[in-house]
Amino acid sequence: MMIIMATEASTEDVASVIARIEAEGLKAHLSQGAERTVIGVVGDIRWVNREQFLLMPGVNSIIPISRPYKISSREFIPNDSVFPIDGVTIGGPELVIIAGPCSVEDRGQMLETAHAVREAGAQALRGGAYKPRTSPYAFQGLGEEGLELLAEAREATGLPVVTEVMSPDLVPTVAKYADVLQIGARNMQNFALLNAVGESQHPVLLKRGQSATIEEFLMAAEYVLSHGNRRVILCERGIRTFETATRNTTDINAIPVLKKLTHLPVILDPSHSTGSWEYVAPIARAGIAAGADGLIIEVHCHPEKALSDGAQSLKPERLAELVRQTRLLAEVIGRRLPEAR
Amino acid sequence: MMIIMATEASTEDVASVIARIEAEGLKAHLSQGAERTVIGVVGDIRWVNREQFLLMPGVNSIIPISRPYKISSREFIPNDSVFPIDGVTIGGPELVIIAGPCSVEDRGQMLETAHAVREAGAQALRGGAYKPRTSPYAFQGLGEEGLELLAEAREATGLPVVTEVMSPDLVPTVAKYADVLQIGARNMQNFALLNAVGESQHPVLLKRGQSATIEEFLMAAEYVLSHGNRRVILCERGIRTFETATRNTTDINAIPVLKKLTHLPVILDPSHSTGSWEYVAPIARAGIAAGADGLIIEVHCHPEKALSDGAQSLKPERLAELVRQTRLLAEVIGRRLPEAR
Amino acid sequence: MMIIMATEASTEDVASVIARIEAEGLKAHLSQGAERTVIGVVGDIRWVNREQFLLMPGVNSIIPISRPYKISSREFIPNDSVFPIDGVTIGGPELVIIAGPCSVEDRGQMLETAHAVREAGAQALRGGAYKPRTSPYAFQGLGEEGLELLAEAREATGLPVVTEVMSPDLVPTVAKYADVLQIGARNMQNFALLNAVGESQHPVLLKRGQSATIEEFLMAAEYVLSHGNRRVILCERGIRTFETATRNTTDINAIPVLKKLTHLPVILDPSHSTGSWEYVAPIARAGIAAGADGLIIEVHCHPEKALSDGAQSLKPERLAELVRQTRLLAEVIGRRLPEAR
Amino acid sequence: MMIIMATEASTEDVASVIARIEAEGLKAHLSQGAERTVIGVVGDIRWVNREQFLLMPGVNSIIPISRPYKISSREFIPNDSVFPIDGVTIGGPELVIIAGPCSVEDRGQMLETAHAVREAGAQALRGGAYKPRTSPYAFQGLGEEGLELLAEAREATGLPVVTEVMSPDLVPTVAKYADVLQIGARNMQNFALLNAVGESQHPVLLKRGQSATIEEFLMAAEYVLSHGNRRVILCERGIRTFETATRNTTDINAIPVLKKLTHLPVILDPSHSTGSWEYVAPIARAGIAAGADGLIIEVHCHPEKALSDGAQSLKPERLAELVRQTRLLAEVIGRRLPEAR
Repeated sequence: MMIIMATEASTEDVASVIARIEAEGLKAHLSQGAERTVIGVVGDIRWVNREQFLLMPGVNSIIPISRPYKISSREFIPNDSVFPIDGVTIGGPELVIIAGPCSVEDRGQMLETAHAVREAGAQALRGGAYKPRTSPYAFQGLGEEGLELLAEAREATGLPVVTEVMSPDLVPTVAKYADVLQIGARNMQNFALLNAVGESQHPVLLKRGQSATIEEFLMAAEYVLSHGNRRVILCERGIRTFETATRNTTDINAIPVLKKLTHLPVILDPSHSTGSWEYVAPIARAGIAAGADGLIIEVHCHPEKALSDGAQSLKPERLAELVRQTRLLAEVIGRRLPEAR
Repeated sequence: MMIIMATEASTEDVASVIARIEAEGLKAHLSQGAERTVIGVVGDIRWVNREQFLLMPGVNSIIPISRPYKISSREFIPNDSVFPIDGVTIGGPELVIIAGPCSVEDRGQMLETAHAVREAGAQALRGGAYKPRTSPYAFQGLGEEGLELLAEAREATGLPVVTEVMSPDLVPTVAKYADVLQIGARNMQNFALLNAVGESQHPVLLKRGQSATIEEFLMAAEYVLSHGNRRVILCERGIRTFETATRNTTDINAIPVLKKLTHLPVILDPSHSTGSWEYVAPIARAGIAAGADGLIIEVHCHPEKALSDGAQSLKPERLAELVRQTRLLAEVIGRRLPEAR
Repeated sequence: MMIIMATEASTEDVASVIARIEAEGLKAHLSQGAERTVIGVVGDIRWVNREQFLLMPGVNSIIPISRPYKISSREFIPNDSVFPIDGVTIGGPELVIIAGPCSVEDRGQMLETAHAVREAGAQALRGGAYKPRTSPYAFQGLGEEGLELLAEAREATGLPVVTEVMSPDLVPTVAKYADVLQIGARNMQNFALLNAVGESQHPVLLKRGQSATIEEFLMAAEYVLSHGNRRVILCERGIRTFETATRNTTDINAIPVLKKLTHLPVILDPSHSTGSWEYVAPIARAGIAAGADGLIIEVHCHPEKALSDGAQSLKPERLAELVRQTRLLAEVIGRRLPEAR
Repeated sequence: MMIIMATEASTEDVASVIARIEAEGLKAHLSQGAERTVIGVVGDIRWVNREQFLLMPGVNSIIPISRPYKISSREFIPNDSVFPIDGVTIGGPELVIIAGPCSVEDRGQMLETAHAVREAGAQALRGGAYKPRTSPYAFQGLGEEGLELLAEAREATGLPVVTEVMSPDLVPTVAKYADVLQIGARNMQNFALLNAVGESQHPVLLKRGQSATIEEFLMAAEYVLSHGNRRVILCERGIRTFETATRNTTDINAIPVLKKLTHLPVILDPSHSTGSWEYVAPIARAGIAAGADGLIIEVHCHPEKALSDGAQSLKPERLAELVRQTRLLAEVIGRRLPEAR
């Protein structure tokens, strides 16, 4: 942490800041510029309240030097985190494609889609039983009945299941049925929920909030990790910008940036990051080319009848084509997409 | 809802869309342009799944005409919603200033601030017992002990209390102590929580999410209203933009826009919307001048010792000066700030 | 400037950085943290290429400490810049209202509006002869004929004239007719144009680009100032964000921030920052309450016939009412709006 | 164009709107909803001033149906625009890589880089002689001397040259030396400049403004095209968002969106869209995977000595590796990168 003094700061101001730094058990390091004095603070400042220094007389600004996250950083854990999810390995050289419907709608739809998705070559199954919807009047999901159908689809196909949990009190219920607990973008800073999934020790798929910085995204992961739950998958799903031609703006830069900053696996959700099925395949390819560890994709056998997100759902045959392309792309960049299970 | 057909749509495409509209019990209205055909859909389309039409052959895009929110709209309730909060009236010609510390830190701090805030002329008290913090390592609030201190401060000053609730299971506890349940910006689309405060029938102060559109903000209010809880106060607290000179960008436009679209009271939080105490007074004045029904302001007697948000907290004497200016401004625009209780 | 070394930087890396600093004639100041080394650079670094340091082995990042603008900063010129524009004073305690049509359309319209605007109480006249339009098919302005009409309107009313110049080669022509040269938002970083108006020594009204940071805005002013032209008026006119309920988002925070950082006068353009006449008056009031030195407002006697920006133009009677409110507001905050000339 | 009437609009209001539509020589088409009336306007509305309708009594809003650009749309020209640039073909199945230094610095640097870039496998050369810089104190380019060096480098290597022009009066000079005139992001809406390069009939590389929507980007291209200059290359170079981890946010979605909306070639500039050389290769690959027709990349033999943009410049050996990867990727998606010339 560097404390930048104002140009008009007095010698007393500087002395008080130094005194306070030392009172916190830290060391101060003075750097006298032509215009300004800068005071470096040396020691473990994770528990120091930076704003208190900001309000001292003569202080102009505070510049943090170390990153605010710890366990999620590559400085703390240099090697990629690789972990299995019911037989599928994520984070290593092998890519993972998770696919399935936006919402679990009924038994027929869920089983048909699960089989189609496995045949198309996906390694895991997604499907929403609890749906966060902008409108209180929209379909809110089947709830526990949906979880049961997901479990049945897993039995039938052997694919592990990823599904969203929206509230801390539902974590045990969802964990009973699902292999991976998904935290949706709107809940990325729902700290009560992050604590609950941290406690659960189930693998977590954490979606980036639509206006979350990469740093905030890693801080949200840190909430889960700090409970001893080390199996967190980060998912870029598009951010909100001024551009309205697509539902969101895929922050493709975030993929290499995250791979540099953290050891956690990073996947891309091109369905939400574009909002339109026509753009899913090119953006999915872009994600793989940029270094993502996998994809999560919305698939529906009859998108025109989907109860939610039909416009951004691929038909199974298009998914099969995307799987084929992903396999070729993987080779170009030295990775591998495993064969269908 | 208008369905815009593609320039290359066939007569059959148009006929299928019309057939489907009629199958939903609605009426279709055809408008043949030089380049395109547009089909108007007449009837109550609140329950129609727009995306299903979007995927029909020959359909280019769908344009919603009516607003997606109902109970929160001025078209539904033309007159301003005015309601009392423990003796203070909000939404009418009288303005309300809610002030207090970011976090409840201890008994001494809370009581000192509560008295200072009342003396400075505020009508209600704020203070956080449960704190949503970006970092898991930062101070997370005193919890129920903080709620007890808030209740004691209310007894001592007569000021009603506004405090945040972060999780559905805590709603009964917080409602036991507080007069108004605050939903923080990060939880604006925590639908489980919105449902819970909707059920509680306690007045709700709903903060706008940092990347929520005004329409999404009203849809979040609609979640609460649709449970029969009509006492919702909307709070603009700044949005996230590319500008980093301030913590957030105060969306001052949102104030007259919301006053036009909804009957609900609208207040401004200049502490969070600027992030810096020096800008709180000018932006608070701007909010009143733009038509806000009140302000919510962070105050600390010793900001340099605050456990959170010290940099954006006003000292009581500055609050008193702001109250004085607000009273004069109120007169210029035909409103009134009541005298201290 | 602080150079932050990577955690894994070697002693040799640190030594090379220090050697390079000294080779540039500057002094290095070492601060050894637990995790990292930080090197302060002392001396006039305005001409140093920061990126060259960034690429040295072991360097993690560079943090600038001093601001990149000089002449526009309050540290360089502490007192408000106050200057007269043909009899109207800007930047002092007196506020200025500039009003007029978006485009000069014809002689009748221009003269009618000019008279109406003077009667409503404005101190200066605006009107566009050269119009930057998103579409090449839209009305592009009357050109020099428009300038002649503006000059005639000035003769008739005594109001000084503000008008936009879009290209360096047109600066002499526009300067022949206008009192103030306006640089539009789209040209805020048209450096050839900034240099040309800097050379001209005419007062300049510089609009903020729709995605320009406050720092870039001040750097654009610095281009003009560095040519010895010290009469620059800054104009906030809304920034582009995700919100689409209004044409732009008024960055009301920018007003007190700019007043703190620079000595230059700051005005607000609520017509462009909202895009809708209904919101012009509340946002204009907000601007004054936040500390703006004036307003620039689009006015049209028959907005429904305007060739451009009709939707955001006030009728003269609404301007008169706004002038009345501004006068009262001015008093509350210790300023003054002069009587009509 | 659809005119949405307010719920409270009277029969007279509707009649006046219809009368006005017909007075403009267009046809009105009425659609009476349960809550609102919608009036479709049929005919060529390109020259109609929409805002004038917006201000008529009873009108709530106007919804454009057709796109505002014409010549740049795929509806107007369905097949990809393919054109040669001094022997290199752009827009067809073959990809193009343009590479070179940010700025032309001196003869040695320019020739060394040009040879290195050709050897690495690039098809064209970039280099800036006129530099738009945020700071008036930064290196502004060598001007015409730089153009001469670029021409010499072309002679020496056979690579066609792309360079930026910043001002309408410099178009003839730059066109004398360069094969392609580049319009920088800051000048995307410098309409005087767009008109000048439109007149010149030289191929144009148009960069997207950092806060320009895709629609505005196409409207800027329309300015050039409407002068009869049909050789425009669109370049995505990152947009400005709230994320600060990278210099800009690569709008990767824009690539498939543009390929759908327009017949013009679309390339990606991963150097500016990321701002950091470490991210250039993954994002360049992503651009190709998403369907871009080429790349423009900053290369410097000694980035640590570059006068501008060193941090985002690749060394020639990294460019060679990227060319190799691009060639493999091209095959996966059914395209081809030609061998070095």
